[in-house]
Order: sequence, then structure tokens, then C-alpha cells
Amino acid sequence: MKFGYFDDVQREYVIERPDTPYPWINYLGNEQFFSLISNTSGGYCFYRDARLMRLTRYRYNSVPTDAGGRYFYLRDGDDVWNPGWAPVKAKPDRYRCRHGLGYTVIESERNQLAARQLSFVPIGADCEVHRVTLKNQSGAAKEIKLFSFVEFCAWNAYDDMTNFQRNFNTGEVEIDGSAIYHKTEYRERRNHYAVFSVNAPIQGYDTDRESFLGLYNGFDRPDVVFNGKPGNSVASGWSPVGSHCLGVTLAPGEEKSYIFVLGYCENPEDQKWEAPGVINKEPARRLLDRFRTDRQVESAFDELKNYWQGLLSRFCLQSEDPKLDRMVSVWNQYQCMVTFNMSRSASYFESGIGRGMGFRDSTQDLLGFVHLIPSRAKARILDIAATQMEDGSAYHQYQPLTKRGNMEVGSGFNDDPLWLIFGVTAYLKETGDWSVLKESVPFDNDEKKSVSLLEHLRRSFGHVLHNLGPHGLPLIGRADWNDCLNLNCFSKKPGESFQTAENMESGVAESVFIAGMFVYIAPSYAEILRRGGFASEAEAVLKAAKNMEQAVIRYGWDGEWYLRAYDAMGNKVGSRECEEGKLFIEPQGFCAMAGIGMEKGLPERALDSVKEHLDTKYGIVLNWPSYTTYRLNLGEISSYPPGYKENGGIFCHNNPWISIAETMAGHGERAFEVYRRTCPAYLEDISEIHRTEPYVYAQMIAGRDAPRFGEAKNSWLTGTAAWTFYDVSQFILGIRPQFDGLQIDPCVPSWFKGFTVTRRFRGAEYVIEVRNPDGVEKGIKTMTLDGTPIMGNLLPDCADGKTHRVVAVMG
Amino acid sequence: MKFGYFDDVQREYVIERPDTPYPWINYLGNEQFFSLISNTSGGYCFYRDARLMRLTRYRYNSVPTDAGGRYFYLRDGDDVWNPGWAPVKAKPDRYRCRHGLGYTVIESERNQLAARQLSFVPIGADCEVHRVTLKNQSGAAKEIKLFSFVEFCAWNAYDDMTNFQRNFNTGEVEIDGSAIYHKTEYRERRNHYAVFSVNAPIQGYDTDRESFLGLYNGFDRPDVVFNGKPGNSVASGWSPVGSHCLGVTLAPGEEKSYIFVLGYCENPEDQKWEAPGVINKEPARRLLDRFRTDRQVESAFDELKNYWQGLLSRFCLQSEDPKLDRMVSVWNQYQCMVTFNMSRSASYFESGIGRGMGFRDSTQDLLGFVHLIPSRAKARILDIAATQMEDGSAYHQYQPLTKRGNMEVGSGFNDDPLWLIFGVTAYLKETGDWSVLKESVPFDNDEKKSVSLLEHLRRSFGHVLHNLGPHGLPLIGRADWNDCLNLNCFSKKPGESFQTAENMESGVAESVFIAGMFVYIAPSYAEILRRGGFASEAEAVLKAAKNMEQAVIRYGWDGEWYLRAYDAMGNKVGSRECEEGKLFIEPQGFCAMAGIGMEKGLPERALDSVKEHLDTKYGIVLNWPSYTTYRLNLGEISSYPPGYKENGGIFCHNNPWISIAETMAGHGERAFEVYRRTCPAYLEDISEIHRTEPYVYAQMIAGRDAPRFGEAKNSWLTGTAAWTFYDVSQFILGIRPQFDGLQIDPCVPSWFKGFTVTRRFRGAEYVIEVRNPDGVEKGIKTMTLDGTPIMGNLLPDCADGKTHRVVAVMG
Repeated sequence: MKFGYFDDVQREYVIERPDTPYPWINYLGNEQFFSLISNTSGGYCFYRDARLMRLTRYRYNSVPTDAGGRYFYLRDGDDVWNPGWAPVKAKPDRYRCRHGLGYTVIESERNQLAARQLSFVPIGADCEVHRVTLKNQSGAAKEIKLFSFVEFCAWNAYDDMTNFQRNFNTGEVEIDGSAIYHKTEYRERRNHYAVFSVNAPIQGYDTDRESFLGLYNGFDRPDVVFNGKPGNSVASGWSPVGSHCLGVTLAPGEEKSYIFVLGYCENPEDQKWEAPGVINKEPARRLLDRFRTDRQVESAFDELKNYWQGLLSRFCLQSEDPKLDRMVSVWNQYQCMVTFNMSRSASYFESGIGRGMGFRDSTQDLLGFVHLIPSRAKARILDIAATQMEDGSAYHQYQPLTKRGNMEVGSGFNDDPLWLIFGVTAYLKETGDWSVLKESVPFDNDEKKSVSLLEHLRRSFGHVLHNLGPHGLPLIGRADWNDCLNLNCFSKKPGESFQTAENMESGVAESVFIAGMFVYIAPSYAEILRRGGFASEAEAVLKAAKNMEQAVIRYGWDGEWYLRAYDAMGNKVGSRECEEGKLFIEPQGFCAMAGIGMEKGLPERALDSVKEHLDTKYGIVLNWPSYTTYRLNLGEISSYPPGYKENGGIFCHNNPWISIAETMAGHGERAFEVYRRTCPAYLEDISEIHRTEPYVYAQMIAGRDAPRFGEAKNSWLTGTAAWTFYDVSQFILGIRPQFDGLQIDPCVPSWFKGFTVTRRFRGAEYVIEVRNPDGVEKGIKTMTLDGTPIMGNLLPDCADGKTHRVVAVMG
Repeated sequence: MKFGYFDDVQREYVIERPDTPYPWINYLGNEQFFSLISNTSGGYCFYRDARLMRLTRYRYNSVPTDAGGRYFYLRDGDDVWNPGWAPVKAKPDRYRCRHGLGYTVIESERNQLAARQLSFVPIGADCEVHRVTLKNQSGAAKEIKLFSFVEFCAWNAYDDMTNFQRNFNTGEVEIDGSAIYHKTEYRERRNHYAVFSVNAPIQGYDTDRESFLGLYNGFDRPDVVFNGKPGNSVASGWSPVGSHCLGVTLAPGEEKSYIFVLGYCENPEDQKWEAPGVINKEPARRLLDRFRTDRQVESAFDELKNYWQGLLSRFCLQSEDPKLDRMVSVWNQYQCMVTFNMSRSASYFESGIGRGMGFRDSTQDLLGFVHLIPSRAKARILDIAATQMEDGSAYHQYQPLTKRGNMEVGSGFNDDPLWLIFGVTAYLKETGDWSVLKESVPFDNDEKKSVSLLEHLRRSFGHVLHNLGPHGLPLIGRADWNDCLNLNCFSKKPGESFQTAENMESGVAESVFIAGMFVYIAPSYAEILRRGGFASEAEAVLKAAKNMEQAVIRYGWDGEWYLRAYDAMGNKVGSRECEEGKLFIEPQGFCAMAGIGMEKGLPERALDSVKEHLDTKYGIVLNWPSYTTYRLNLGEISSYPPGYKENGGIFCHNNPWISIAETMAGHGERAFEVYRRTCPAYLEDISEIHRTEPYVYAQMIAGRDAPRFGEAKNSWLTGTAAWTFYDVSQFILGIRPQFDGLQIDPCVPSWFKGFTVTRRFRGAEYVIEVRNPDGVEKGIKTMTLDGTPIMGNLLPDCADGKTHRVVAVMG
């Protein structure tokens, strides 16, 4: 069942009814100011850090769901409704929510009053802009009251929801004309405040939640709105809110619009006040002045659209399959931007409280982002590398505000260091900017301990080599990519976090996954060294990889598939000898991608085993069989009920590894099928089962052992975005950046007739037409660049700012 | 304006309408299992630790207010309502909520259907019992559907509200007949589960919140109830709930009752399962078997009533003033029990997340609790002392489950150690149990570092003496009793907690408050030493107190009042020289109580200054004038807007210090007036201003500098309870335990004609009639014990299990 449709021209997902199977959200903002906004205008916004600098309050897991947002109440006679349906839930006669790229439009109508809410965060501005347009579609004049509403957060979102004995006393506001200022704690150590304003005179305002709603009322029944009269309440403690009341008179057919701005402002320490107790409103006035007129808003909106137009012109697909086109050309890349910005901090499943930027998460995210804005990718790489330790190990996360490693979240994830090599490789292949390797980057943010970025990569690679176990395989540490496979924790304490439980390093537990990853990245890393003038070191790297490969073949192959790991007692994990958890997806993906045991056909056998044992109609499950009981030696994975999350769930993130490995084996149809099964656009028709947004990936889909098989969770913030884009763009469509140029190496189903990719790459644009006249799955027979045949399938670096036509014929 | 009344016979507060100015709550449970329940049946329950072992989910600062609880929905034809009004809020034709001692009764009626909900936690049982009685008051038969509802918490309340990417996958339940089992995480490291059952066959059930409510509905509009049909949903992840559906047929005049039990059960590690994946329900069956019949419930309810009858018979007042009687005899003592049980962890203002048992808080709480159950007071003293450090300093809090000091919450509050002496003194005076001093008690819970309790007191006293500042006054450390006067923190970081900010000990900042406290407790402590055979040490203690007194007189007297402190630069705090914060209540109270500078009349002058500058119609504010700006050298106090909390709020906790000091000065009328102003029963008529419960104290009432002057916050969990009881019982009524017996030393307004206190004390009962024929404020002229005149005003220790009549005549 569908709840909307893709508008491919506008690049919008259009939601046709407000009661989606779960709130379907969008992200606003690309730089410092970010908003989450649902199809009913729920959500919140923050400045840079979702925990520490939250502007508006949001209640996760609220009853009703998704209560709280920026709400506009329309009082038309005695009838009260919201353009976004929620919270009043008066049925609109017409409703559309258009989630676009960095903006959301809600259009609805009730009793011949049409309302249109355009919401976006302008480029270069720290605010949300909401333009509300009202049109009288009736034959008689209308007298409307328009009430706005936001609820402010006392900045630190964690403190805001726990420390009431203090917080109920600190709330402060100022009101100045149509501008409401939230200045809680500004009197003391903060030099920032929020402003919520509208570009029209108001009839009144409210800033005290209880006065606006009434103590026992929900957002669906605010006293002030139902009484039709603002309370002019001035918050003093409790819960400050911002609400404007506007009187709107509309002649038949008349239309009026109002621009609401909700922004973040800060002052220098010595310019905090304009009078004793009165905040310096200068930065707010400057901000508001930028969005006072429709023209200004339209211009900012155009700028945003152009921004995305520009970004998405860097990779654009035209094929016979509109679902594929829209995912590749628009939505997957859009999600990659969001994961780049948010890491795993703030979604409708991530509360923004507990998680900062992940070392592994954010490095992986680069795979899908680096082609969009390479300069920001570079900056991110340097930030991440600066949190690395001298021994090559890493904090698992760092704080977005301070960029410092976050010790509270644990460390000892032994795959973390390798991801840095992965990310840097991706950056080099995209940009050819070899100078990045010479950047001076500290360890643990200590400038005194600065070395070149290349040296960081050395420490990363060395960290694996210096931490090998009894079988010569990498020690797993607290966990590897699978955070929930905790082989050294042995947690018995109820509720203890596996991320921070004491890691009782056995020196025994080994990861075949890390081994596969090590072998996979070694050639690129060796090449980086070789080009840096370290030829013998490059050789050593390749030799180490060879040794690792042998170790995997000897100790990491289980007969039909790659083993997952050895636990702290040296017992096999992910072996046919195991009672449960016989087979895991991760090593099959990475060892096959690395080609480990290729000459013996191990990759293909592993992929066949995946197909036989792990594959389901909704995607490939992580392990089989799911663990039915808790295993002290395995940790969190076995803490989940069967079929959920890492315990037999379809963990979408690793499905592309299998897809990529299938392309390497030349299985175009199989690779595409793996891609398709978890790809949201293809799941649109079963939204009632899938539940989360049909335009973005979810981290997990419940596996076949779960009662809710096929139900997705944790949409938006997942490495799935980057990995699927990496898969589909570089391996299925085969437009693959290499150190020396763009390689064209598609691997597609035989029934693919061809496709065209427009790709901006290193200062030139390539319009690449791939033809498949013979219906093959892989292989380029001939290729021309601007009509001239070229040898092989590697496009040279034109770097001339021009557009080049490429025709590649498979066969 | 009143919203209810005191039923003095039943010892209940009867609320007459559901929309009280703030949710008015009650506490159920006295031992391990505790519940908070509001007048609309909102709230939650937990086992021992409000953070880690929470059975049901509660959303603080929810919209609507107080949403979530144990709800019973009645569907009578198409009409749906709740006995407690919330959440449906259908107006009842009749409504009463009776908050009693450890139980709550909600009685209401709508459309001639009467409902009565009796809720309590039985003595010795880890469960809530809710008996719902329905009576058909109409002339026609009624077919009712009764739906129960609770929402389970995933045990750790903090994790439950932040970690959704995990928690939405872990929820599990079992249903067995009429019993619903919440077993989330039982499959792994927990060996406990919750059970929610009813003593009747059910028509169906729901255990998945979304199935019960509908995704976008609030608690006020559950789909299942409005459809009249249970969904028989089995939770798998998301939010497990428990709901029973019962069909109830009532003939005219017929009454039926149903017993719902919501309990906590645990199993030994090796007996967790009765079959693979099936929890061992034996403990649940045992629990449920205890409350299957009305007779069992009535018997348990009688036991609870008798329990409280017994406790409150230990101090019972009859006077001419029913407000005074009900506060002294019932509600103040009841609140003291609650503060003893909860410390500052779980109220409608304390979220149960952040605070464990306070070293200072819990020791103070003993002042109002020790006479009720001395054995529990003793156990608490030993728990607290065991968290002390060898140098006499203390963790500021400890964890209720582990009883270990909580380093996260900070330390260095230099008054903390002295409170241990205070608590032990109170215990000794109540019980005469000198053996407690010989108890072996570890430092920092390290059994290897065990010493006698007396040695702990030595370290406490010594900690002050070893930490004196430039004026010979005690160094304040991070703060003293006033947690918000942070003289060594200099916090500049937005949002940083003053409790955990780095304490940059200046070695300069001194507290006159600690000095006063030191002098106040020294005589009792010296007496303890003397009786323990340490006469010369006792002398040294008295000498140290004398020196301290001199230091206060010399450096701590500001001319008209006692100084508050010296800051880290050696500047005065709480001096007429200050621009703001000239005068603070705390040192006036404690230095006057200690009689510092008595011969120069300093206490009386200080009290006059308090009256002149700090007194308001709603109580005495903490400081004057309030700070209008943030002061880096003073910390949190100046972070509050003027009039709130420690910055010019009426901090009820310290008002009794002034009242006690007034009794010492012989000012009975003034002492009583101070007592009366913050006493909730006297504020019942202005509930629309005061807002919190008129039967319990709040921590704070907004002061005269606040826009909401007179509005109370943070009700229930406050040292106010213990201190006011200490004040009114021992100083105003003057029934004062001393080491050698009960002293009778009232200090009352001259218009008090007399009163009678029944007091159980050390194994005997004293019925003490105080007469005031001459209308004096203080002084006992004659006293008889069982008709025999005795010298002085100290009753000897009868300890004979009998009742003795005492007549004390003032004059």
C-alpha cells in the first residue's frame, strides 16, 4: 500500500495522507542549523549539537506519536485546524506534504480555506523559515486567526528532560514587537538565545505553555486557540513557548502570506546586553531582516534549490527504471548528505542525546558523500584522524562541538582504524588531491602530537598488525563493525551497556571480518604508499595482506563459508559446528570483496551459502540461525529477540557488501537483486509493512525470525546510505573513481538495456552512456571518449571544465 | 481557593475535582516497591531504584500534563470514561479522590455507573493492588466493558527515554490466562519481570501500545476501547503495555469488583525458565495468590491501615487548631516517611534519573523519621556512614541499589560530614541505644577499612577542624548546605553542572553557616564522647566550638546579622557591604540556634534583621536582595532568576531554623508565625496560588522578587518535612528527646491555651497535657508524671511499656 508518490520532476516525495505508517520526516539545513520535520510538521531543530544546543523541545516515544513541532493553528470561525493535520487532527479536505531537498511543503485545505506551509533552513542562515500562505477559496470574506506555536528547549536536551527541580525555575523570555526571544540561562553562562518572529504585526502572543494550552490539555486543544484570544503570557520558569496570534482578513479569492523565522543568535561575551537584563538583539534583527519579504524568502529558497541542483548534477542516472533513477540520482545521495551531517545523532530513532560523531560511522559515510562536496569530506577526515590515538586505536565517537574523543562511549573497536584508510582512499580516488596525505594532524587532539595524515594511516594499518591473535587473525577488541558481537565483555549486569562494559581483552578473540577488510583495503593502501615514494613499505603491506589471506584460508574458512570469528575461548563463531549463529553475513561480504581464496572459488561458494541460508524476500539477514538465548561469550547480539537488529535482522548496511561481491563475481542479476530488495523506492507499495519512509534507507528490517518480518526501523541515519550508493554507483552501474581516473565497469542484470550517467569528476563532466546490446552482465567491449575509442575501461582525467561524451558498450 | 478538604477522621485528603492546580499526588509503598499516584491515577511504580528498576513508563513534563498511569477505561454503551477523569477527561457526575496513608481511593460516577478504585501497595508485597468496584446505580441492567491499561518501562528509565534504536527492538511479553508478563531483557541479563493480572477471566488483552491506542492517538482516545474490542496484540519490540478487557454485566443496583495486581518478580539465576523461552512464573503465581479475593485485599488493606495507625501513635497532637493537629499528627510525619524512602529521587519534580540518596539529605531526613521506626533509621545511618571517606569527607550521594558512593554527582560539600553527627545524635536521643556507636562501619564501602561509628563521627568533626580558612572559619568546599552557593567553581561553561564542575579549592572561601552548625552540634557530640569515656576529647570538642564561636563573632558578624561566607577572594558574602545578597537566612538560623554571641545579643539582632529584610507573607526568603546578574564568584545561586530557588526564593527548608531560633529566644508567637506561613494546611485556601498539594511541603515557594510570588514547586521531597517536624514537635510544642529522657519545653504563642501530645518514647507511652493558663510563650512552671510532681522539665525514662499521664503547666 502506498501513502504517496515520487515527484521526480520536483525531486520531492509527495505524501498524500497525514497518517503515514510512521512519521515520515525530512531534514532541513546543511551547515550548522538543522531541523527534523515530519509530514505533520512535528520535529525540532538544533544548532550544531543535537544534545547541547537544542532550540525546541521534542518528546521521543511520545503519546500521541510525534507530538511537538512548529505548529500553525487556524481558527476559521469556530473551526480549528492545522495545515499539517497534527496536532488538532481535524480532517483536511485536501492534504499534501512534499518533502523536497532541504525543504518541506505542506499544502492543505479545509472549509475552502487553503493553507500552504513552506519550511526550510536557508543556506548560510541559522534559522528555520516557515512561510504560511492562506487563501480564501470561498465566495465570502473570511476572518481568520492564525496562531503559531513552538516549545523551547532549555538548550541541553538531556538536562531538559531530567532536571525539572531546576529547569522549572529558569525559563525566561522577552517579547519585542512580533519577536519572541527565548533567553533561558542567557542571564548566566550562555551568550546565545533563540528568536521566533513573524513579519507582520501581531494581535498578541503567548510565551508560557500552560497559559497557551491549559494545564491538562494536549497540543490538540490549546485554550488560547479555542478561545480565539492570545493570553499575552510572559513565561517565568516552567515551559517557555513562542506563539503569535495574527488576525487575517481574506476577501474571496484573496491570498496572504506570513513569514515566520525561528533562529539561533549569539553575542560576544562583552556585548551580551543592550540594557541591564535586556538581551542584545542586534544579531536577531540582522537575521530577521534577511527574511522579511516574500521576495527575500523566494530568493533564499531558489538558492537552496540551486545548491541541490548543483550537488546532484555530480552524479545523475537515466535508465529504464524510474525507481532506480530516483534513488540513485536523488534520494540516496540526499540521505548520504544527511548521514554526513548527522552521523548517528538525531533522527526519529536516535534521540540526539547519546551519540556523537562515530569514528567508523562518519568515515564510512564519506563513501557516499565525498563526490558531493570533497572539501567538506576532507575537513571531516582531518577531524576524525585528529581523534586517533598514537597506537592507531581510536575513540569510537567524538563530540561535534568540541571535536574531541568521547571516552564515555567506549573504545577498543578494532576495525575503527582501518576505516580511516578506507575514507582517505575514497577521498583520493575522488579528488586526486594527494596533498591531503601531508596534512599535519594531531593524535587525540593534542597539537604537540602532530604527524602527517599518511602517518595516521600507517598507525591504522599497524594497529591491526600489532594486534593479531593465535590464528594470525586480527584481534576483535570490544567488537568490530558489528558493535553487538562482544567477544571480550561477558556482561552479566542487567542493563549494562555493551559499549562501555569493561572490555576484558582475551588476546584470543579474533575477527575474520577485520581480516577481510584488511585484505580488501591493502592494495589501495599499498598504492598510496607506492605513489608517496614508499615502495618497499608498499610491498610489505601487500605481503601482510597475503599473509592475512592465508590465515583466513587456513583458519577462517568453514567449508562452505567464511567463519565469523573466534571467541575468547578460541571457539568458532559463525561455523556449521555452532548450534545457532552458524553463518554470518559480514565476512562473506568483505572476504569475498577482498577475493580471499579466489583461486579455490571460496568467494563464490560463500555467496552461494549466503543465498541459500541468509536470503529472504526482504533482504539478507545478518546471521542464521538467530540466537534464541543469551550467550555470555557473544554479548549484545544475543540480547536481541530473534529476527531483530544484529540478531537475525536484515541489517541493510551489509547487504551491499554481498551485492558488491556479486558484481566482482560477475553476477549482475544477483547483485541487482540484492540491491533491489532493501531499496526503499521498490518497497513503496508495501509501506504498510515496511512502515518507514519509502525514500530513504532504514538501518534494519525485521528478519524472518521476527513476528514483524519486513518492518523497518531506524530510518535515515545508517551506513546503509553510503554503502548502497557506493555499491550501485561504483559496482552495479560501475562508474568507479580510481587513483588515475574514472573506471567504467558495470555489472548489471542481462535484461538491462543500458543507461546514462552524468558524472562530474575532477573538474570535468562526463556523460557516460552504457549500452548492453548483447545482454551480458559484465564487461566493457568498447569505449569511446568524445567519439574517440580508448583502450580499456579507464577514462583519463580530462580536468578541463568541459563536458565529455562517453559511450561504453558491454559485451 | 480550595480544591478539597482534610478528612481528619479517615486521615485522608479529599480532592473534590480532578483539575487541581497541579497534579496532586500520593506515594504508595513503604519498603521496596514504590508508586507515585496522582489524583487522576497518573504516575508510575518502581522496585527499589527509581532509575534502574522502573516498572512502568512515565513522561515527565508531558503534554498533556501527567499523562500516563494505571488507567481503567469504562465503556458504558458508547460512552467511554475513566474513574480518575484522565486521560479521556469525560466529566464525571461525581468525583472524589481520597489520598490516604499509603493508599489512594478514587470514587466517581457517570451515567449512573459508580466506580471506585482503591490503590495501594500492601505491606510485605512488591506490587500495586488496584481494586476496581463498579456499581449500577440505574434502574436498568448495564453491559460494561472494563479495560485496564499500564505502559511498561524497559527497566532503566534513562535508557528507556534515550536509546530507541535498541529499545524498540527488545520488548517482549507473555500472556497466560488473565496475567500479562512484561519480560523485556529477561532473555538476557535480567532475572526479573513484571506481571499485571486481574482476578477474573478476560475477554481479551492488548500488550502492544500502538495496537491498543492507534499510532496517532493519545491515551485519551485508545482505538481498542473506542472500538469496544480487545486486539489481543502481542508486543514484539516497540512499546509493551498491559491491558485487560473484561465484560461486566450489572443488574440494577448490582456491584462487582475486580482486583488488578501489578507486581515485580524475580527468579534465581538457575531457575529463570520453566521451558525454553518461557519465564518461570512461580513467583508471580505466589504473588497473585495473595490478592485473589476481596477478603484478601481487605485484610491487606487493614494491615496497611494498622501499620500507619501504629506509626502515627508515636506522636499525636490534640490542640485547639485542627490545621496544626492534622499537620503534626498525620501529614508532616507521613511526608517524613516519604522523604526517608525516596530521599530526593522520585517525585513529580524529581525524575528519578539523576539523584540517588543524599548524604546530607538522608541524614537530615532522619530528624523527622527516627521516632517512627528507629531500627530503619539506624540501618540508614550505617549505610550512609559506610560511604564516608577516611578523611571524613563524603560522597554527596550514593546509589540506593548498591549503596555505593556516586562519584558522578560530585563531592566536596564541606557540611556533609557534620550531618552524620546530627543524625546519630537524633538517633541516640530518640532511642538511648548507645551500642550503635560501637557498630563497625567501613569507609567508602571497603570492609577492610572498617572502624566504629564513633570513629566516623570523629572524622566528621575533624574534617571541619582540618579544613579551616584564613579567618578560622570552615572552608566551604564546593558548597555547604546551600548547594548553589559555589564559591570555588567559577563556572563559565554553558550548561555545566555546578555539582560536578571542577572545584578549584581556593583555601580561602569560608562558610559561616558551617561554623554555626559546628557550634550547634558540638555540645551533643561532646556529650556523646563524654559518655563514651572520652572526657578530655569532649573538652577539646567544646573548646573547638568555643574557638569557632569566637571566630564567628570576630569575622562572621556583620553588624546587624551574621555574615554568610567569604568568597575565594576573601570578599564578604551576605554583608551590608554587598550590592546584592546582603543578608542570607542560613547563618542567621544556625548561628542563632547555636547561640553564637548570645551574651552580646547577636542572635536576637540577627532574628530581627531576618524579620525586617527577609520576611514575606508567604515565608522567609533565602537572601536579600536577589541577585539580578550572574556572579562568577558565587555560582549557581546567581544563575536563577530573582525570586526563584536559592536566589531569593522562599526555601522552606530553612524557615524552621529561624522558627527554632525564635523559640530559643522565647518568642513563641514569632516562632509559630514562621512555622505557619509555609505550612501547607494553612495555605489550602490559596491553592490556586500555591498550586502544589496542601497536605505536604514544597521545597520552594517563589519569593517576592518573582513574577509568581507564592507559587510552590518541588513538593514532597524536601528536607523541609523533617526540619518542620523537628521544629514543631521539639521546639514549638517542645516535646524534645534528650539523651536521658523526654524534655517538655514548649514555646508557643501566648494565646495557645494548651495542647495534648501522645508520645511513644523508648518503650513507654506518655500522654502529655500542656496547659498555658497564664498565656505565656515559654517556660514550664510545674510538671507531674502520673500525678506526681517532678523537678524540672525532663521526664525520666519509664521504659515499662505502660501509658503515663503528664501534666505540664506553663508559666
